[in-house]
Amino acid sequence: MALIQWGIVSLLLILAIEPTSSSRSIIQMPTEKQNLGKGGLDMYCESWKLTVETNNAGNWGQMPEKCAEYVVAYMTGEQYLSDSEAVTDNSLEYATSLVSTRECDAWVFDVDETLLGNVLYFVDTPGNGSMPDMDEWIELAKAPALPASLRLYKKLQALGFTIFLLTGRSEIHRNATETNLRNVGYIDWKRLILRGDADQGKYASVYKSEKRKEIEDEGYIIRGNSGDQWSDLLGFAVAKRSFKLPNPLYYVQ
Amino acid sequence: MALIQWGIVSLLLILAIEPTSSSRSIIQMPTEKQNLGKGGLDMYCESWKLTVETNNAGNWGQMPEKCAEYVVAYMTGEQYLSDSEAVTDNSLEYATSLVSTRECDAWVFDVDETLLGNVLYFVDTPGNGSMPDMDEWIELAKAPALPASLRLYKKLQALGFTIFLLTGRSEIHRNATETNLRNVGYIDWKRLILRGDADQGKYASVYKSEKRKEIEDEGYIIRGNSGDQWSDLLGFAVAKRSFKLPNPLYYVQ
Repeated sequence: MALIQWGIVSLLLILAIEPTSSSRSIIQMPTEKQNLGKGGLDMYCESWKLTVETNNAGNWGQMPEKCAEYVVAYMTGEQYLSDSEAVTDNSLEYATSLVSTRECDAWVFDVDETLLGNVLYFVDTPGNGSMPDMDEWIELAKAPALPASLRLYKKLQALGFTIFLLTGRSEIHRNATETNLRNVGYIDWKRLILRGDADQGKYASVYKSEKRKEIEDEGYIIRGNSGDQWSDLLGFAVAKRSFKLPNPLYYVQ
Repeated sequence: MALIQWGIVSLLLILAIEPTSSSRSIIQMPTEKQNLGKGGLDMYCESWKLTVETNNAGNWGQMPEKCAEYVVAYMTGEQYLSDSEAVTDNSLEYATSLVSTRECDAWVFDVDETLLGNVLYFVDTPGNGSMPDMDEWIELAKAPALPASLRLYKKLQALGFTIFLLTGRSEIHRNATETNLRNVGYIDWKRLILRGDADQGKYASVYKSEKRKEIEDEGYIIRGNSGDQWSDLLGFAVAKRSFKLPNPLYYVQ
């Protein structure tokens, strides 16, 4: 199952799919009345999201059920786009501050919820009752680009950075991943690194650190690293600057 | 000047104090009409705050002037209290998950914007035109406790942790700092560490790492570290778990 291939995924949202619902969704909305008013609930979920984004929450496993509606509204709304753009602005402020960029200056991107957005997969289904599992979703190659990340990607290329893509997806998804990326505008990366047989079962933070180390051992200096998970960014062979994109949907160790 | 003694402080808020204003404030509110509507401005400032809290913004120096009103509303409102409580919840979830706590299990707290809140100093003045500078403010020993941190502090003591306080304040403020802390309910810490002569001029991240190293060298295991600045938490001799409290007011390197 692809979700496991993404890492030791403490997933999250795969709360039970309601079989009685005519339109299936992986995110289960709470059915009980909340004790908190709308303001109070929003405040609670806002605080929860901040603990996730700062990594205070650590391995949080599963979002509070009562925040499912809040998270969906966030991930499908303008604030998420605005937050992502702010991260791109931070990244470009740094990238353009470097005196010069040479071929050995590398930038590493994660794929899911970094270059591509899977919120459509998590939030709703392409058709009633026909929700594919994650492997099928990836093979559809239909994930849209995150606009802020596409802007960053193109600008970094223009600046002369060598781009590496480092994903928790498995090698079996290489073709679909390449197709999806190219179709939405990501082209001319140096290398797309997916989990091979030897990488299965490893924590994402270990697998990704090992792969960054290999990039460094080839003589590259990893100037920047963009990812939506702390496990994309921490560990060893850490980039000179790391940029955490928002993602309150799920946590990957 | 105390602000320098706090670190290489990229301060921030000390935008020019309006001499014509009858009520002085260190935070200068924007006087021009904003291009963005209230929703757009809030969204922008919300995104900016997230880049600060995740450390994406790095050494951000000074808040966007147009976000001053947003930041003041945040720091004096309920969301800040809620966010701080969420960090305490994270901290206690971790602290109580440890099998047993012994005397060698240490927890390190920063002081300003962690145990004590100085927002009154930054936001407004005790009297018209009588704003003390930071040294004077500290000597007043009037900073209130951050309620969430007082809850965490007491609970950690009850669990048996040895508490260290590690602040960027200088030794000259030892008495006032101790008085202030005790008056608002913080008692029975193991040691209060302030900047001595040899620590002046160092980056906070270096000074604090050195002091944490000394704590470790005495045989303590720093299980947790709470601070509102990334420079409270990163560097070397890093705690097993670090907890970042919110602070969009200023950045300390």
